[in-house]
Amino acid sequence: MRRLEHFITGAWTPATGTGTPLHDAYSGDIIAETGDTPPMAPVLDYARTTGGPALRAMTPHARALMLKAIGQKLMERKEELYTLSTSTGATRSDSWVDIDGGIGTLLTYASRARRELPNQNVMKDGAPEVLSKDGTFLGQHIRVPREGVAVMINAYNFPVWGMLEKLAPAWIAGMPVLVKPARQTSHLTELCVRMMLDTGLVPEGAVQLICGGAGDLLDHLTAQDMLSFTGSATVARQLRAHPTVIANSVPFNAEADSLNAAILGPDVTPDAPEFDQFVKEVHREMTVKAGQKCTAIRRVIVPAAVLDAVQKALVDRINLTKPDDMGRLVSAAQCADVRAAVDQLEAEANIVTGGAPRGTWHPPTLLRCDTPLTAKAPHEVEAFGPVATLMPYGTGAEAIQIANKGGGSLVASVFTDDPDVAREIGLGIARLNGRIHFGNRASAKSSTGHGSPLPVLIHGGPGRAGGGEELGGMRAVHHHMHRVAIQGTPDQITAVTGVWAPGAATRDDRHPFLKSLAELEVGDTIRTASRVVTLDDIEHFANFTGDTFYAHMDEDAAKRNPFFPGRVAHGYLIVSFAAGLFVEPSEGPVLANYGLDSLRFMAPVSPGDALSVILTAKEITPREGEPHGEVRWDCTVLRDGEAVVAQYDVLTLLAKEPREL
Amino acid sequence: MRRLEHFITGAWTPATGTGTPLHDAYSGDIIAETGDTPPMAPVLDYARTTGGPALRAMTPHARALMLKAIGQKLMERKEELYTLSTSTGATRSDSWVDIDGGIGTLLTYASRARRELPNQNVMKDGAPEVLSKDGTFLGQHIRVPREGVAVMINAYNFPVWGMLEKLAPAWIAGMPVLVKPARQTSHLTELCVRMMLDTGLVPEGAVQLICGGAGDLLDHLTAQDMLSFTGSATVARQLRAHPTVIANSVPFNAEADSLNAAILGPDVTPDAPEFDQFVKEVHREMTVKAGQKCTAIRRVIVPAAVLDAVQKALVDRINLTKPDDMGRLVSAAQCADVRAAVDQLEAEANIVTGGAPRGTWHPPTLLRCDTPLTAKAPHEVEAFGPVATLMPYGTGAEAIQIANKGGGSLVASVFTDDPDVAREIGLGIARLNGRIHFGNRASAKSSTGHGSPLPVLIHGGPGRAGGGEELGGMRAVHHHMHRVAIQGTPDQITAVTGVWAPGAATRDDRHPFLKSLAELEVGDTIRTASRVVTLDDIEHFANFTGDTFYAHMDEDAAKRNPFFPGRVAHGYLIVSFAAGLFVEPSEGPVLANYGLDSLRFMAPVSPGDALSVILTAKEITPREGEPHGEVRWDCTVLRDGEAVVAQYDVLTLLAKEPREL
Repeated sequence: MRRLEHFITGAWTPATGTGTPLHDAYSGDIIAETGDTPPMAPVLDYARTTGGPALRAMTPHARALMLKAIGQKLMERKEELYTLSTSTGATRSDSWVDIDGGIGTLLTYASRARRELPNQNVMKDGAPEVLSKDGTFLGQHIRVPREGVAVMINAYNFPVWGMLEKLAPAWIAGMPVLVKPARQTSHLTELCVRMMLDTGLVPEGAVQLICGGAGDLLDHLTAQDMLSFTGSATVARQLRAHPTVIANSVPFNAEADSLNAAILGPDVTPDAPEFDQFVKEVHREMTVKAGQKCTAIRRVIVPAAVLDAVQKALVDRINLTKPDDMGRLVSAAQCADVRAAVDQLEAEANIVTGGAPRGTWHPPTLLRCDTPLTAKAPHEVEAFGPVATLMPYGTGAEAIQIANKGGGSLVASVFTDDPDVAREIGLGIARLNGRIHFGNRASAKSSTGHGSPLPVLIHGGPGRAGGGEELGGMRAVHHHMHRVAIQGTPDQITAVTGVWAPGAATRDDRHPFLKSLAELEVGDTIRTASRVVTLDDIEHFANFTGDTFYAHMDEDAAKRNPFFPGRVAHGYLIVSFAAGLFVEPSEGPVLANYGLDSLRFMAPVSPGDALSVILTAKEITPREGEPHGEVRWDCTVLRDGEAVVAQYDVLTLLAKEPREL
Repeated sequence: MRRLEHFITGAWTPATGTGTPLHDAYSGDIIAETGDTPPMAPVLDYARTTGGPALRAMTPHARALMLKAIGQKLMERKEELYTLSTSTGATRSDSWVDIDGGIGTLLTYASRARRELPNQNVMKDGAPEVLSKDGTFLGQHIRVPREGVAVMINAYNFPVWGMLEKLAPAWIAGMPVLVKPARQTSHLTELCVRMMLDTGLVPEGAVQLICGGAGDLLDHLTAQDMLSFTGSATVARQLRAHPTVIANSVPFNAEADSLNAAILGPDVTPDAPEFDQFVKEVHREMTVKAGQKCTAIRRVIVPAAVLDAVQKALVDRINLTKPDDMGRLVSAAQCADVRAAVDQLEAEANIVTGGAPRGTWHPPTLLRCDTPLTAKAPHEVEAFGPVATLMPYGTGAEAIQIANKGGGSLVASVFTDDPDVAREIGLGIARLNGRIHFGNRASAKSSTGHGSPLPVLIHGGPGRAGGGEELGGMRAVHHHMHRVAIQGTPDQITAVTGVWAPGAATRDDRHPFLKSLAELEVGDTIRTASRVVTLDDIEHFANFTGDTFYAHMDEDAAKRNPFFPGRVAHGYLIVSFAAGLFVEPSEGPVLANYGLDSLRFMAPVSPGDALSVILTAKEITPREGEPHGEVRWDCTVLRDGEAVVAQYDVLTLLAKEPREL
C-alpha cells in the first residue's frame, strides 16, 4: 500500500508515523495511507525565502503565461486524474466539474490576468488624489505583493478544483502556496501536484503539499501570510479563533457549506418552462457529486399553490435516477453523518422520498417542511449529501424571509420569467448571499447553473457561509495583495508606481511617437503648437459629420443652455483637432490608437479659442511574448495655453523595437 | 455633577447604577460621570428596524446632502466643541485635528459621494461578464446595503473625528450607527451627538450613543452588522476573538496603535532641507496631542552617519517646547501607563531627554537605541504619549529591515529628495504599512504630514496595526456594503441593477434625445441609418484636423502595419461620424455631452465600409437638488450592420423636465 508523500522544502518526502488508510469510495478497499505531518515552520520559511522571491522575480504576465503552460500540460494528462478520481466516489461528470473545472480556472486566470492587470508587481488602485492645490502633493493607492505564503486548507469534495482555484490568483499575485487538502481525497491532489511539478515549469518553492493533518501549521502564520479554508462552518470557526490567527491579524478567508436556497417565483405555473427548469435544477443539485457540494441546493422554496406539483415532479425525476447515475459519498463515515443529519431534519420535516444508505450509496432524499417560517432545522442542519427539503411560501416577502433564515449562503437561485419578481426577490435576499442565480426560459440553454462557481464571479457568502470571498476574476488577485496609500510629490509617486503622475518630471527631447518601447520612458512628452478654432471650423465639422446639435449651430439656443456662453465647438472636434496637433504622421513605432479612457470635457470651447495639447507617456505595458506593448498617454487639451478644456487617456500600441522600414 | 446620557431607542436616557467620574485632564476636577450600560439587544434592534429603513429610504446622494447640511451646522457651532475639548487635555491645535478634521471628513464624504457614487442603493461593481457565447446569460457584481448596524468602539484621543470618520461612510452606505466612545472623553462625543440631533436632520434611529462600557453589545451582533474598533492592539484581539464575532462571521475592522516609523533617507545630509523637515516632523508628531495619536512617530530611523546630528537637532527643538505648547495626557492613569512603557523601553534604549511626568503633563521624551536590529522593545512597546526612540541604520536594506520589525504599522514616513530612495525604501516597507508618507523640499509647504489620516486615503494597517482599512474615499462606503454576484439574462440583470445590460430589452418609440429624465427609461434606444466612409472622407478629415498619421494616408505603410489591411479611417473620424448619425440636433432636453468612457476600437474601418450606430440609455442619475441629471449611453458602432468597430459610453447631461423653449 502506497503512503502519500508531502512535497515540502523542494522534495517529495514520505510521511513518518503510523499510517491512516484511505478507502476507495466504491469498493471500500484501502488504496493509500497518510502519515504524520512534520513541523511546519521550516516549510513556511522555505516558501517565504524561495518560492516567493522566485515568483516575484517574474512579472504578473509572465506568471500568467506560466499558469497557461501548466494548465495546458495538465489538460493533456487529465485522463490520469479522471482515472484516479473514480476512487473518490465521483462519476465521470462529477469529475469533470473538479478536473476540467479546475484546469479551466487556471486557464481563465492566465488569460484574464494578461488582459486586465498591468505587467508589473506594483499595481495602482484608483486614480491619483490631488492633496494640495498647487499639485505638488499627491496621494495614490497601490497594491503590492504580500511576502508570505498563501495557505489553503481545502475540502474533500473537489481535490483538484479546490486547489487550482486558489492557487491561480495566489500565483498571479506573486504568492507561493501551501496546500493541505482534506485527507480523504488527498491522493488525487497529490497526483495533480506531481503533474504540475512534472512540467518543470513551477518555480522552486512556489507550491508545497501536505497530505494529512495540519500539524502545527497555524502556529507559524503571520500577517504577511493568508489562510483560506473551504469546509464546514464548525472548522471555519475554529480556524478563525486560532490564537495565532487572532494575535497576528492573519488575513483569513472562509468558504463554508451553507443552506443554499432555490426559490420558484410566484409567477411560475406548472405548465411554464421555468417549472421544469426548476425541477431539473433541483434534481441535478441533489445528485451531482452525490450532493457533496458546498453550493448544492438544500432548501427548495416554492409557492404553496404549486407545492404538491413540485413535489410530484421532483419525486418522479428522483425515481428515474438509476444508482449509477449518481456517485458515492466519499466514505462510510460521511454516509453516517448524512444519515444523522436527515434524522435531525426529520424532527421538523417529513421524508417524501429516500431511505437508508447502502454502503457509501445514499439515496436521493427529499424532505418536506410545511412550516418553514417557524421551523429551525431545515435552515440550520446541513446534510452534506443528496438531501434537500421542500417548503412552501405565501407571498414574495415570505419567500425572502424563509430564504434569509439560512443566515448567509454561498448561492441562491430564483426561477422566474418576470423581471419584477427577479428584482424583488433578488434584492430581498442579496445581502445574505454570495451569488444569486436567475433562471428562466431565455437562459435555459446558456445558463451555467445554480451550483457552478465561475472564475470570473465571486464565490463565498456572509454569515454561515463563512464571510469570505474567492474568485471573481482579478478581485481574488487583489485579495492576495496588500493595499497601501502613498503620498508624496508627483516625482515620488511616479518613482514608486512606475506610472507617470500628473506634475511629475517630463522629457521632451524628441517626439515620443518616434520612440519604440525600448526607448520610451514614462514622462516622455510633447507640448504642441496651438490652433485657433473658428466658427467656420465648427460649421464645417458639423456639416461634414452631420452632428448639427443646436449648441454648435444656433447662438440663441446655445445661450439658453445653462452650460454654454453661446455656440461652442463639438467635443469630437476638440479631440480630433487635438490628435491633429499631437500626432507624428510618419511611419514609425506607433502601430495603432486602440482607444480612449475617461474623456471629460472640462470647459466649453468657443470660436476664437486657441487649442494646444500636452501628451505624456503615462504607463508602459510591454506584452510578454509579443513584439509590441501598450502605452497609455495622458492627454490634456488647453485653451489659450491655460484652462484645461479636455482631459483623457489615449491608448496606443507601440512596437518594442524600432521598426525596420 | 452631570451624568452623561445614552441616546438610545429614540431618546436621551440617563444611565443608571453607580457613577464613575470623568476628570478634567488639566485640573483633575470631576466634570461628569458615566453609569451602567443597558441591555443592548433592543438598542440594536431599534437601529435595524428604524434607522436602517429610514436611511435606505433615501438615495445615496440624498444621504450625502444630509451629511453636508449636518456638517455645515456643526461647523457653525464648533466653538462649543472647542471649549469642552480643553478638558480632554487638548490644546487648540490638538482640537483642530479632532473637531475641524472630523467635520471636514463629513463634508468630504458628502461631496465625494455625490461625485463618485450612483444615486441608487444598488451599485454596480465592475462591468457585466458575458457568461454565454450568445449573450443570453450574463454575470454582474453589485453592492447592496447591509441591513444591520455599524457598531463603533472608539478611542479616547479623537472623540469627534473618531466618530465622524466612521459615521460618514456608514451613513452614505445606508447603515445606522451605534457609537460607543471611550469613556474618558465620551462627554465630548456626547455633545457632538447632541449637536447633530439638534439639527433636526438626522433620521430616527440613524445614530445611537452609549456613554460607558460596551455591556452585552457584542453578544447580539450578526453578519449584517459591522464592528469597527479603534484602540489598543490588545483590545482589538479580544474583540476579534469574541465568540459571537467568530460564530456569526461578523465583519470586523480594527485600527490599532502601532509603532510607526519615520526614516531619514541615506541621501540626506544635515545641510539638506529634508534634514530640517524631518526633525520638525518628528518633533511635531511627538508633541501634537501630547503624542496620544495612533499614527504618531514612535521609531526614528536615521543613517548612522547623522545619528548624532539628528539627536542634537531634536533635543534642541524639544528644549524649545514650552509646557503650554503641548497638551496634557488624558488622565493620571494614562500618564502612569506611558511612564511604565518608558521604563520597558529603557531596558534596551537610553533616555536622551525627558523625565518624570508632573500630574498629567508628560515631558517630550526621546530615547536612543543603538542596536535596533537586535533590540525588541523599541519595536514592540508603545508608549502612548510624547515618546519616540531614535535608532541608526547602515544600508537602505537595513533601514527597511528595522522598520519592518514593527510588525505592521498604520503609517511610515520616508524623507528623501532622491526618487530612487523613495522607490527602494517605499516598496521595501509597503507591505507592512497602511500609508507611506514621503517628504521632501518640493512638498515642504503642501504636505499634509505624517500623522494625518485623510478622508480620501485609506487608514489602517496590517498585523499589529489591526489588519483593517478605513476611509480611502468611497472604499470605506464599499466596506459597509455587501458584494454579491448576480447571474441571469440581460433583462434580469437590468431589472435588479436598474442599469441597462447589453442584450436587454430596448424601446425605440422616438429619438431618446427628445425625452427629458422624466420620460427617459434605461433601454431607450436609437438604431441609426448608415453612412459609407469613403477614402475622400478619410483624406478630408486628415487634412481638416491635421491628423495625417501614416495608417490613414499611405496604403503601403498601412499594409506594413501588423493590424491594418490597408488605409483605415481615423478612430476620431469614426466617433465623429457616429455622433453625426445619432445626434438629434434640435433644441431639447439634452444639455451637453460631457465625456466618453472606455472607448475601444475593435476592428479597422476601411474605405467603403458602412457605419451605423446603436445608442441606448444605460444609466440614469438624477442630481439631487439640480434641474438636470446624467445619462450614460451605451454606444456601439457597427460596420455593415454587423461587426462592432467601436464600443464606448457617451456621457450627457439631461434636463429633468421638458424644457420650455
